[in-house]
Amino acid sequence: MAGLRIYRSAVQPGWIDYNGHLRDAYYGVVLSDAIDALMDRVGIDAAYRGRTRNTLYTLEMHMHWLEEVKASDTLEIDCVVLGLDAKRLHLGCEVRIARHPSPVATAEFMLLHVHQGEKPGAAPFPPEVLAALERLRAEADGGDWPGPRSRELALKKR
Amino acid sequence: MAGLRIYRSAVQPGWIDYNGHLRDAYYGVVLSDAIDALMDRVGIDAAYRGRTRNTLYTLEMHMHWLEEVKASDTLEIDCVVLGLDAKRLHLGCEVRIARHPSPVATAEFMLLHVHQGEKPGAAPFPPEVLAALERLRAEADGGDWPGPRSRELALKKR
Repeated sequence: MAGLRIYRSAVQPGWIDYNGHLRDAYYGVVLSDAIDALMDRVGIDAAYRGRTRNTLYTLEMHMHWLEEVKASDTLEIDCVVLGLDAKRLHLGCEVRIARHPSPVATAEFMLLHVHQGEKPGAAPFPPEVLAALERLRAEADGGDWPGPRSRELALKKR
Repeated sequence: MAGLRIYRSAVQPGWIDYNGHLRDAYYGVVLSDAIDALMDRVGIDAAYRGRTRNTLYTLEMHMHWLEEVKASDTLEIDCVVLGLDAKRLHLGCEVRIARHPSPVATAEFMLLHVHQGEKPGAAPFPPEVLAALERLRAEADGGDWPGPRSRELALKKR
């Protein structure tokens, strides 16, 4: 099982922190840009957003940071549709760099299709977007997604 | 139960996205800065990091986005020590804005105290840092932390 390579980004110099590696939050910035790229791919692009006032809102995200990333690395984002219903998309993302065989981070997102009217409210995906997301799910079956999964955070003896 | 008000940040204009609100990932950037402020507070500051080559690494984070934040809002971050052992800190954070009575986002972090030697490795907190973290935990008992908690992400009928 391989996710869809949806996005690439160099590490910007301002993203390196006092620990000498990519600051935690900028993995999230790159993943957010990757979700924009996925939205373009499935038809939730700027034209659709302008025409319909529909968009995606992020409800939840669980990230695992697994390896350090340095200024010279390029981040590559692979995504898998882990779940889908009429209004919601459960996405699994891997952050990869060329010099490391396994992901340097993984993240799961729960995203909601929203109509931005007077008050934003959940709205069903239109059929063509749902079909595009179904195709993505079929291409990369999330059943075997290898990343450490979201869970209740707690300190346990280890 | 109230968390410690650890950090405040205005919303920067570049953080507003095409949906007209604070982009999801920048909640994470502000939370990362808030954790720096917490590190300063408990003695894991620049002087300590320089002297010992010890620091904190983020292992995991689970965030819930609850309300939209606009360009005119100021984010305030309250933190609670939810768990603590010899090397790890489980932190609960609320993101608040003045015009909204409940948090606009919550996030749990699992943080590891690391010695950055030839290879970074987990290291026990020194006694004075552990004592400072214990005091924080005593001040704001996390047992009643009201935020939506971390969990396994999954689509369920609702």
